Amino acid sequence: MSAGGGHRVTAEPPYYAVIFTSVRSKTDDAGYADAAARMIALAEGMDGFLGVESAREAVGITVSYWRDLASIKAWKAQADHSAAQAEGRQSWYDAYRVRIAKVERDYDFVREGAQPL
Amino acid sequence: MSAGGGHRVTAEPPYYAVIFTSVRSKTDDAGYADAAARMIALAEGMDGFLGVESAREAVGITVSYWRDLASIKAWKAQADHSAAQAEGRQSWYDAYRVRIAKVERDYDFVREGAQPL
Repeated sequence: MSAGGGHRVTAEPPYYAVIFTSVRSKTDDAGYADAAARMIALAEGMDGFLGVESAREAVGITVSYWRDLASIKAWKAQADHSAAQAEGRQSWYDAYRVRIAKVERDYDFVREGAQPL
Repeated sequence: MSAGGGHRVTAEPPYYAVIFTSVRSKTDDAGYADAAARMIALAEGMDGFLGVESAREAVGITVSYWRDLASIKAWKAQADHSAAQAEGRQSWYDAYRVRIAKVERDYDFVREGAQPL
């Protein structure tokens, strides 16, 4: 696990990112936290999952990383399978946007002795 | 301006995302905040800039959106031009990773009366 509760992503490009940005509504914090944790746990168990990074201030940003489009599709199918989750989504957010993006290049910096991202 | 201090991104895919994830070091908060604001102001003034979203908890995630690779390259060239900024970067982060990704699909949800992302 890297900082932020994510998994370090060790894949070489090309791979895929699902960029989920959202603004929370003011309802049902407990239900939301449970479902968010379930979505991550579900992702972690799936073939092709590479990692996830997440932060929230005024806007929440969760980026999950995947080997290919097929693994994203399988994750989405599993998530949609939970009808309760789909219902919850209506109440937890004022707005969200999902972007599917192909990571073409990446590079990093790591201070000596620090944990890589 | 949408929530989170970003600009709403109205482009249709394909467009590009620069996903910048980072863990801050414990030094020079003032210098960091200034430089971060300058990077955003610089981006806002550039051709091809579509918007930016940002949040930080244990990990910081800033995603900026761009019309094409050429506009990202021009932004990076301008930013690198500031030698001070490059020096600062060494001290502000324990680690960071930059990913250049092509947004192939997006979809959104907006509650009635709420601001779109």
